[in-house]
Amino acid sequence: MGLVFEQIKTEGLAQLSYLVGDDSAGVAAIIDPRRDVDIYLEKARVAGVRITHIIETHIHADFVSGSHELQARIGAKICGGKSLDYQFELQQLTQGDEIELGKVKLQVLHTPGHTPEHITLQVFDAQQGEQPFGIFTGDTLFNLDVGRPDLSGTGTEKELASKLYHSLFDVLVPLGDRVEVYPCHGAGSACGKSIGDRAQSTIGNERIFSDAFQKRSEAEFIDWILGDLPEAPRYYFRLKKVNAQGAKVTGCVPTLQPLSPADFQAAMEDENTLVIDTRSMLAFGGGHIPGAINIGFGSSFTNWIGWIIDADKKLLLVTEDTHDVTLVTDYLYRIGYDNLFGYLRNGMSSWSKAGLPLQHLGEWSVHELNEHLEQVTVLDVRSDSEYAKGRIPGAKHIYVPHLEENFEKLDKTQAIATYCGSGYRASIAASLLEKNGFENVINIPGSWSAWKTAGLPVEQ
Amino acid sequence: MGLVFEQIKTEGLAQLSYLVGDDSAGVAAIIDPRRDVDIYLEKARVAGVRITHIIETHIHADFVSGSHELQARIGAKICGGKSLDYQFELQQLTQGDEIELGKVKLQVLHTPGHTPEHITLQVFDAQQGEQPFGIFTGDTLFNLDVGRPDLSGTGTEKELASKLYHSLFDVLVPLGDRVEVYPCHGAGSACGKSIGDRAQSTIGNERIFSDAFQKRSEAEFIDWILGDLPEAPRYYFRLKKVNAQGAKVTGCVPTLQPLSPADFQAAMEDENTLVIDTRSMLAFGGGHIPGAINIGFGSSFTNWIGWIIDADKKLLLVTEDTHDVTLVTDYLYRIGYDNLFGYLRNGMSSWSKAGLPLQHLGEWSVHELNEHLEQVTVLDVRSDSEYAKGRIPGAKHIYVPHLEENFEKLDKTQAIATYCGSGYRASIAASLLEKNGFENVINIPGSWSAWKTAGLPVEQ
Amino acid sequence: MGLVFEQIKTEGLAQLSYLVGDDSAGVAAIIDPRRDVDIYLEKARVAGVRITHIIETHIHADFVSGSHELQARIGAKICGGKSLDYQFELQQLTQGDEIELGKVKLQVLHTPGHTPEHITLQVFDAQQGEQPFGIFTGDTLFNLDVGRPDLSGTGTEKELASKLYHSLFDVLVPLGDRVEVYPCHGAGSACGKSIGDRAQSTIGNERIFSDAFQKRSEAEFIDWILGDLPEAPRYYFRLKKVNAQGAKVTGCVPTLQPLSPADFQAAMEDENTLVIDTRSMLAFGGGHIPGAINIGFGSSFTNWIGWIIDADKKLLLVTEDTHDVTLVTDYLYRIGYDNLFGYLRNGMSSWSKAGLPLQHLGEWSVHELNEHLEQVTVLDVRSDSEYAKGRIPGAKHIYVPHLEENFEKLDKTQAIATYCGSGYRASIAASLLEKNGFENVINIPGSWSAWKTAGLPVEQ
Amino acid sequence: MGLVFEQIKTEGLAQLSYLVGDDSAGVAAIIDPRRDVDIYLEKARVAGVRITHIIETHIHADFVSGSHELQARIGAKICGGKSLDYQFELQQLTQGDEIELGKVKLQVLHTPGHTPEHITLQVFDAQQGEQPFGIFTGDTLFNLDVGRPDLSGTGTEKELASKLYHSLFDVLVPLGDRVEVYPCHGAGSACGKSIGDRAQSTIGNERIFSDAFQKRSEAEFIDWILGDLPEAPRYYFRLKKVNAQGAKVTGCVPTLQPLSPADFQAAMEDENTLVIDTRSMLAFGGGHIPGAINIGFGSSFTNWIGWIIDADKKLLLVTEDTHDVTLVTDYLYRIGYDNLFGYLRNGMSSWSKAGLPLQHLGEWSVHELNEHLEQVTVLDVRSDSEYAKGRIPGAKHIYVPHLEENFEKLDKTQAIATYCGSGYRASIAASLLEKNGFENVINIPGSWSAWKTAGLPVEQ
Repeated sequence: MGLVFEQIKTEGLAQLSYLVGDDSAGVAAIIDPRRDVDIYLEKARVAGVRITHIIETHIHADFVSGSHELQARIGAKICGGKSLDYQFELQQLTQGDEIELGKVKLQVLHTPGHTPEHITLQVFDAQQGEQPFGIFTGDTLFNLDVGRPDLSGTGTEKELASKLYHSLFDVLVPLGDRVEVYPCHGAGSACGKSIGDRAQSTIGNERIFSDAFQKRSEAEFIDWILGDLPEAPRYYFRLKKVNAQGAKVTGCVPTLQPLSPADFQAAMEDENTLVIDTRSMLAFGGGHIPGAINIGFGSSFTNWIGWIIDADKKLLLVTEDTHDVTLVTDYLYRIGYDNLFGYLRNGMSSWSKAGLPLQHLGEWSVHELNEHLEQVTVLDVRSDSEYAKGRIPGAKHIYVPHLEENFEKLDKTQAIATYCGSGYRASIAASLLEKNGFENVINIPGSWSAWKTAGLPVEQ
Repeated sequence: MGLVFEQIKTEGLAQLSYLVGDDSAGVAAIIDPRRDVDIYLEKARVAGVRITHIIETHIHADFVSGSHELQARIGAKICGGKSLDYQFELQQLTQGDEIELGKVKLQVLHTPGHTPEHITLQVFDAQQGEQPFGIFTGDTLFNLDVGRPDLSGTGTEKELASKLYHSLFDVLVPLGDRVEVYPCHGAGSACGKSIGDRAQSTIGNERIFSDAFQKRSEAEFIDWILGDLPEAPRYYFRLKKVNAQGAKVTGCVPTLQPLSPADFQAAMEDENTLVIDTRSMLAFGGGHIPGAINIGFGSSFTNWIGWIIDADKKLLLVTEDTHDVTLVTDYLYRIGYDNLFGYLRNGMSSWSKAGLPLQHLGEWSVHELNEHLEQVTVLDVRSDSEYAKGRIPGAKHIYVPHLEENFEKLDKTQAIATYCGSGYRASIAASLLEKNGFENVINIPGSWSAWKTAGLPVEQ
Repeated sequence: MGLVFEQIKTEGLAQLSYLVGDDSAGVAAIIDPRRDVDIYLEKARVAGVRITHIIETHIHADFVSGSHELQARIGAKICGGKSLDYQFELQQLTQGDEIELGKVKLQVLHTPGHTPEHITLQVFDAQQGEQPFGIFTGDTLFNLDVGRPDLSGTGTEKELASKLYHSLFDVLVPLGDRVEVYPCHGAGSACGKSIGDRAQSTIGNERIFSDAFQKRSEAEFIDWILGDLPEAPRYYFRLKKVNAQGAKVTGCVPTLQPLSPADFQAAMEDENTLVIDTRSMLAFGGGHIPGAINIGFGSSFTNWIGWIIDADKKLLLVTEDTHDVTLVTDYLYRIGYDNLFGYLRNGMSSWSKAGLPLQHLGEWSVHELNEHLEQVTVLDVRSDSEYAKGRIPGAKHIYVPHLEENFEKLDKTQAIATYCGSGYRASIAASLLEKNGFENVINIPGSWSAWKTAGLPVEQ
Repeated sequence: MGLVFEQIKTEGLAQLSYLVGDDSAGVAAIIDPRRDVDIYLEKARVAGVRITHIIETHIHADFVSGSHELQARIGAKICGGKSLDYQFELQQLTQGDEIELGKVKLQVLHTPGHTPEHITLQVFDAQQGEQPFGIFTGDTLFNLDVGRPDLSGTGTEKELASKLYHSLFDVLVPLGDRVEVYPCHGAGSACGKSIGDRAQSTIGNERIFSDAFQKRSEAEFIDWILGDLPEAPRYYFRLKKVNAQGAKVTGCVPTLQPLSPADFQAAMEDENTLVIDTRSMLAFGGGHIPGAINIGFGSSFTNWIGWIIDADKKLLLVTEDTHDVTLVTDYLYRIGYDNLFGYLRNGMSSWSKAGLPLQHLGEWSVHELNEHLEQVTVLDVRSDSEYAKGRIPGAKHIYVPHLEENFEKLDKTQAIATYCGSGYRASIAASLLEKNGFENVINIPGSWSAWKTAGLPVEQ
């Protein structure tokens, strides 16, 4: 009996939230909850603790916070850093503030940088001694990475980068090597440039393993962090607003209804709808509904949905099977896509059986691409930095989120082969091209990864 | 592909609801949904059908209907029999009305008796042929029993009994022996006098096995059905009103919070609270919080909660373990107990460790009772008909739901041993006696069942 | 308390097994268990009954019986009909034998026809009265169908058809319309010609709805049942032997290991291995491992695996995702494919990224096929009776299980478009053609269903 | 993609095992598996890794290792430290040995102390850098504690204590404060004297928080660790032998069968059987089967079963409900109690209803005890060190595992009130006394915890 400490991983968001408390006193806090909150209630029940505090380390940009949902269910207090941005009532915490959870205590450090109001929470447990054993770092410090200072979209990145330097070097490092680090994100999140595989670390491990800590001066650090920043996903600005206002309470994840091929087709006629095909690229290539956009369900699904798909559109979903429907719905809910119209019942099989039209994409292996290199326009849809490091000879380059505003740079009558790192983004790109009138589009499964492994010629 | 047909059993209510539809057309109806509706959404998803209709065979008295909850989640249409009692918009169905669900069709029979507006639904499936293969009988016809006509509490039982006779003999029997019967309740529900163990039957099986169908005339039938009716649970009148109005939508089952012994004790001081101890009788006897009422969690939990506990009271729960908390919460939700304050964290173990007072009940085997028969007042808390069939020599008799208004018939200074069929109701009674100042109360685990099995003397 | 009665559906086999017993006495039997038996143990635990008898209505041909697995776990007695075929100790039951399960009783009827030793079990429950309320009919009587008499492969079908006639008309029909029918199979099983959608029925419903019962004489019945029998799946003969001997006990479903693309490729070099690609046809068409056979995971997966794939081959699996791996493994286990080598880790995505070769199939909508009808050989791979009822003009016909012995009838240098009812079997056929050197193979998703729905020209 | 790292907690054993590997390479190891191994197979499947190595940090004494069970399922290699004790083939690892798991590497440190062959594994991940980020410490180092050197029962504790000192101070501490510590046990395990609440730590956190590291010299350390060692649970010697031999493979956790009261009673007549009542103390006190031993199901269940119950006895179980049966069975399986006969169907309710005899224990609150202190012998069954720190005035003292050999020190005709820390062990003791002829036994729920909280007089 004593400390309760659980990390909850949310796969599609590469997000980490926490239940921390004291089961002797029977109280606990949730740190950085996601929007579908049942898991926290269940874990609290099993642990025998009452959730008394819901704490936001900062205003999240990459997912809808579950704080209001949780509060609606159990009435706990929402706490966060000090900021004028919050448009709802919460307990604003400043440096040194303490939250008592029985013999466990959270003490606030102000660690601006990723955002101005960002706080880090030190965890004290009377059983362990008088020092904190660990810290909840939110998006200040990750495994092998630190929080990006450029996600607010307000041009404050340099100022925030400077603050981040001081948060890291003057606030966190002095806590000592031994202190455990519990961040808000793992590998795959765009809140860092390139977060490592581990869901936790120590100050010392980061100090010696992480590039960020190898910088000799503030200037060098700022140069480094702002130097090759990937572009901020555009939906981050939207979600920041949602969270600053406090997300609308829905009570539960919405239930999506199945649509017959006929009903699905009818719904497509509304200009405001989009068909999202969440199947794998090979299945999409084999045959899909004309006009569908292929964003395959998987770990980066939410990222590309967020970036490519307008949250105001009404979505029609195509999934590989019924099992995927609930997963996809959960993922969309977590990033605030609440305008879901339905999904195609029994998937593409029912569409085909109804005698409805199919569209196809070529799905060429890299060997096939290499053989036909002269006959196609090769389009690299990776980010600038990936492109810069090496590419297929002669490839044009448009980063996938910018494709829609750059169609005019491409020739609709020419065959176009799209590639990225693995084929995933290339398939998004291929579907967007096709939807917009390109007649001969080929996707390259395996893409750059396969090209290199196969030892094919590279242009630098 | 074609007919979808699933029976959903809800244990604590002995309730049966149904998903019926056509997965070729992708549509389905829910018949008589319970209040926690996730199970229907999940089953519809797996079956690949959209729920287009929610059908109430009648206005239920024993549970809160989930029709409004379901409608809030997926927007389907609520349908029911024709009645002025309904205080919300619904599609009122009359004899001969049809609901098309692809190649499956539901056709309405008006079968008043249990209630005036009661409908039975015939199920036609084009694949099976032109006749209905079965009927959803709601509370008109159960396995080995028929619906009680006396639950409205408005003195119309004779009239309804007559209608029931005609519904059974003139409407259902003519459908033919082969027709399958899918009722709304199984064994344990008080909507019948003594429902059989089976969750389904056939017209023919009921015609030859069920007492109701052995009656030669309407008069004989009415005499029989009104003859030895057990008393109607009082909460049925309350729930009938709730369902006629349309239950309030909550979105999800409430989450109950754990309370420390100190918080629990503090909450007890509010006069409007009641402590419900859901543990088994032996655990309750071994030690309990002074003033707690013992209604053990199990198949008849909702019935006795409904009957004994005022729905306006704020409830404090004691459970055997944390696992039980969610089950108990579900059960209470299903019968509309929404005023739950919390549960004792870590159960009685935390109470004991906090050095708080314990109260005990004697838990005598029938052999111990037999030895001390002269020293105690023996109180039989079974129903009148059970008591009439045989009892422990010299036992007084008060049916447990009437105990609270009959305390003055008992001597508070005397030792009182309570018994029922198994000890379950006797333990409720014992706890009520103790809470109301009786000083020496003994419960008899095994009770009448044990007494008879042990071959002890019986009074008739 | 009393009767326990649960039907357990096993999807991939369209199989129905039963737990029946008496929870007052605490005993039960399992009827026709499948091989992965955990579900029975769990249901018995929840019901509070000890499994004392395991009953086989007959020697199954379409799945590996779980009787021995169950016996190894809990030591119950195996019972079955009287037959010299059984090569293990069991209690052989003959007409009139009774199995007592507390107040529930099973009484044996000998109902030969589907097999010579087939028994039907009448269920008596003392609570219901003195007559049986229902029967476990095994493969004697299904919804809208009866058991095929030709599955033994020993030329006894005429004799068995005659016996079946008497079992149905002289043994079952006299039980009365009201009697409930609980069969061993539902729609999709090849143990009948065309089993209906319902998992249960009544004698009366079958008597009026089922073709089998419209026959006026034994001769007419025999003509009808043997008249248009679909071919018996060849693996039925193998499984009949397995079950007559008593299947080997394995203790649990095998755990399949993931293989890297390199390990997978290495394993393919062994001549004795086969690659089974369980993805949907569109995904397979989009890109697959050269030489893979496409048998999509779904309700008819076991049937086509059983028919097409040699059980002695070592299998390498490709699945859409990791979630499918356990489902596929369960399904293969149920039909005795124990020689599983592993599955491709991360599916086709890892294969593509490794730069390994991809093969493609054209996946044409029926409209595309119609446009190119002159340029391809159209191959109908449906059964003879399906083909006879109408086809795409000019289509050749080879039933998919006979394709491998009829390759010489087709021209390897010509483009071949395969179709079936939906595209599922056509994709199996297309993959077999491709594996065997056909260079230009096209599958038609939607196939005959789409062709008809689209109103394209038909040849009769 | 890269590092896979999962900690698996096994509640009843306070045990921690690990899946560690590389999902790019698709390989992983399991560290210190428990006997019911399905969880590892499932986690490996989800992670997309093949288990290639099973590693024992040492020969466990407190649970049956799952290494052989796992090997039987998937054929991986078992590895462990170098020891002549192992009586099966395994890969013996010595200082510096490396196990490659893709880009993850485990490197062996020899850290004798808890046992002579004990190894610690350093985890290197190429992504993190060239240093290990953490260590699997087995039973060498826990949160706030270190492994006891006295569990072999061979009188080598002083020698091992010395080795442990060097393992800790000369091998582990030099790795650096930042290094993460992943032990084999958490709070509640008797492999340490008093393990802290955390399931992980860092070298630095232990160095400053743990008593063990405050010792100035080897001699001081040895004095401290051997100074107030609690007695080693006797079953540890048995399990060490089981694990040195390699536990028998069973394939799955056994399925326990329900017994009717009559069958249960009949089985009790066999001298070799014991009735274990796993209900809570209050339920046991309220009424139990004469002769039953009360070891309540919960976190210390396995410890007291192991210590008090002869593993050769045939066990009959009484549980609170059916849900507990599988949990209890799992727990017993994990510590090698394979001789389970069955459980009482429907628990004590069926026993009572059968009219069978009940025995009762008084369950006094501390206030009731205090009032009657003069009339009873008070028996403290806590450990020597607990007793030494303070007790109820006048209490006799026998540590519960020694009770059976010390009955003669107590007067059977006198009322005896047993207490411990919470009442849990006192109830074991009370049931043992009663089973052995003591006629008036009272248990004290809350026990010492309640006595102190209530401010009652204490003797030191």
